[in-house]
Order: sequence, then C-alpha cells, then structure tokens
Amino acid sequence: MNASKRKKLAIVVQGGTLDKLYCSFILASTAVAMDMEAHLYFTFWGLNALVKGSMEKIGLPAIYKHLEERMKENLAKMNYPTPYEMLKRLKQSSLFKMYACSPSMGMFGVKREDLIPEVEEIIGAAAFLEIAAEADITLFI
Amino acid sequence: MNASKRKKLAIVVQGGTLDKLYCSFILASTAVAMDMEAHLYFTFWGLNALVKGSMEKIGLPAIYKHLEERMKENLAKMNYPTPYEMLKRLKQSSLFKMYACSPSMGMFGVKREDLIPEVEEIIGAAAFLEIAAEADITLFI
Amino acid sequence: MNASKRKKLAIVVQGGTLDKLYCSFILASTAVAMDMEAHLYFTFWGLNALVKGSMEKIGLPAIYKHLEERMKENLAKMNYPTPYEMLKRLKQSSLFKMYACSPSMGMFGVKREDLIPEVEEIIGAAAFLEIAAEADITLFI
Repeated sequence: MNASKRKKLAIVVQGGTLDKLYCSFILASTAVAMDMEAHLYFTFWGLNALVKGSMEKIGLPAIYKHLEERMKENLAKMNYPTPYEMLKRLKQSSLFKMYACSPSMGMFGVKREDLIPEVEEIIGAAAFLEIAAEADITLFI
Repeated sequence: MNASKRKKLAIVVQGGTLDKLYCSFILASTAVAMDMEAHLYFTFWGLNALVKGSMEKIGLPAIYKHLEERMKENLAKMNYPTPYEMLKRLKQSSLFKMYACSPSMGMFGVKREDLIPEVEEIIGAAAFLEIAAEADITLFI
Repeated sequence: MNASKRKKLAIVVQGGTLDKLYCSFILASTAVAMDMEAHLYFTFWGLNALVKGSMEKIGLPAIYKHLEERMKENLAKMNYPTPYEMLKRLKQSSLFKMYACSPSMGMFGVKREDLIPEVEEIIGAAAFLEIAAEADITLFI
C-alpha cells in the first residue's frame, strides 16, 4: 500500500504499569496486523520500563493489585505473551517504530546503555509531535 | 445531518475510577448533544466497571480520596446523575455506541452474562481501531 | 502562517500529579515552539492544580514516590523550570490557550477567585470538543 495512505497510530506511552504497557502493545500489535503504522513514544514511567530488567518486574497499580493474580493466571491459560515478548514481536514489523524520550532520560538519569537493545531512536517531543500531527489516532496511555 | 459528515469522538475507557468514568460519560453526553457520534470502548478497569453491581461501588483513586466526600456532596447539590444513570441516558441516543473489549474479558475471566445489560457489542481491538481511525477526536481515558 | 493551516494540539489535562503536568506543559511548549496551537482544558485534578498555591505543592503519584527525589535533583541540575514557571512562559505565546472546566469547578466547589490569575477562560465540555474536533492531535493526560 502507498505509505502516504497508510493509517497511523501514535501513542505516548507515559504509564509504566502492566495494564498500560499491555494496552499500548496490544493496540500497536493490532494496528500493524491491520497494515497501519504504529509509533510509540516512551516517556516518564514508560521510559523507565525500557531500562534493562525493568519490564519483567512490572505489576498492576496498587489499586488493582487484588486482580493481579487472577489476571496472570488467565494470561497463562491463554498463553498470552508478556509485554516484553510482545515488544520483541512488534520489532519484527517495519510498520512499528518505538522512540525513547530524551528529556525523560535526563530527568531520570537514564543513559542509552541502560536501555534494552530494542530501542533504536532517542528523540525529543518536537520530533514526536511531527509524527503525531500526521497520525489518524493519537493516544496518551 | 449526513452521517459521513458527522464528527466522531472515540474513547478507550481504560480507567475504572469515578473520575475516569465521569470524564468519559460527560464527554460522550456532550458529544451526542452536539450531534457528534460517541464511541466508547471499555477495556481493563473500564471493562471491569461494566460487571453487574460494580459501577455503583466505584470511588476515587486513593490519592484523591480526601476529595471524595466534598465531590459527592457537590454532585448531590447539583442533582448530578451517577455514572450509571449517565450511561443509561446515553444509551437512548442512536449516536452513542459502547463496546466491551473481548481480550479484557478473557484476561479477567468476565463472561457476557456478568456484564450489565446495556452492553450490546463485544469487539476486539481491530474493530475499535477501525472506528477510531475515522474519528475526529481520539482519547485514552 | 495562515491560521487555518496551523496544526493544533488539544489536551484534556485531567491528571494533577507532577508527571502529568510536566507532560502537558512540555508537549504544549514544544508545540508552540513549532508554531502549532496548543489548547489545554483543565478538568478534575488538573483543574484542582490551578487553585492558587496548589501547583507548587504537587508531587509524583504514590507508586513512583521513590523516584521523586532523583527526578527533582536531576531537574535542578538541568535548571528545569517548575510546572508553574512553564505555564507562565506558555502564557506569553498567543498560540497557547488554557481553559478551566466549568463542571469540574462545580463538582469541587472551586470559584473563579480561587484560581491562579493565568486562567482567563472558563468553558464547558461542548466548547472544548469543538476545539478538539478541529485539532490534529488530541490527548487525555
């Protein structure tokens, strides 16, 4: 399909809890399966989730902790991939792009070498807004 | 008005606290009053809020609990409808559509018969993204 | 540039924690620097953050409290402006507009004179949806 006609999804991944990461990755996976572009900009807690070893440890927010066990059991029964597994699969699609937010890295003292190797691009808010301004769906998760 | 020209609002209702439900329903009610379509896709905690008996029990997030009493007093003085009352009124408009997210139902072990009768359609993320890609306003609440 | 061609960012600022305010103000500042319009609609906790004396006291959500000190140290080292300083700078741009949500003021018993002087317009959801329906990027933060 003509790239200029392809629909685009742009998400600011600001949350870093299990539910927010799943929402981001499920929407992105669905989008690329539909031949849409998916652009994920990781900032704040989303950026912190890209630090090596972090994503594996992520749980639900305190208010929903009582649902975590049931959710994890159901995910296991469904053979549902973990967020990191979903991210690795997403990386196999040329329609998927992920970006680490450079100001967030400064705020939290996170360096490039601290991030998981799946991160290719580190960009600022201006570069992301340019992408988002051309997107059909924009979300802040 | 020509349906194809009508403006559309598409919301992912992911939050399940009182403030997030009110935001979703106030925006949707306002939209339909303006002759816009409003499409609400209930996922995660928003989906859990559709389980029978849940919406009535919903409160504010812990961080804002100290404001809950004042808020409820003011809502009572204003004769403000509850979230469930707002939802029932919304259902009377042909411009309003609500969808339960099928993957969330799997994750939390929620069955169709567990949901309030106002839910008509259960759809996946792909069906929602198609709607959202044609919307003028897309929000993740 | 022709105003009708200028790109527009419309944000519902619903969150009132330090991270949500920074995200809103950083995106808005970046947008106006790119010659985009930025429209911020403060509702719920975002509205409460506009009450005089509130913004200075705002911190991170409980779940991320352990990162607050590190974040504040890094912000100080970077000479990063506070949210209120960012807001004051934003107000100097004619491309920036901020609105207090009138229904939220009723819900929380907040009066015009309780709000910081930077707030000029108090509007309802309908007026905001009209703006958002013409925006290129719509976010709920």
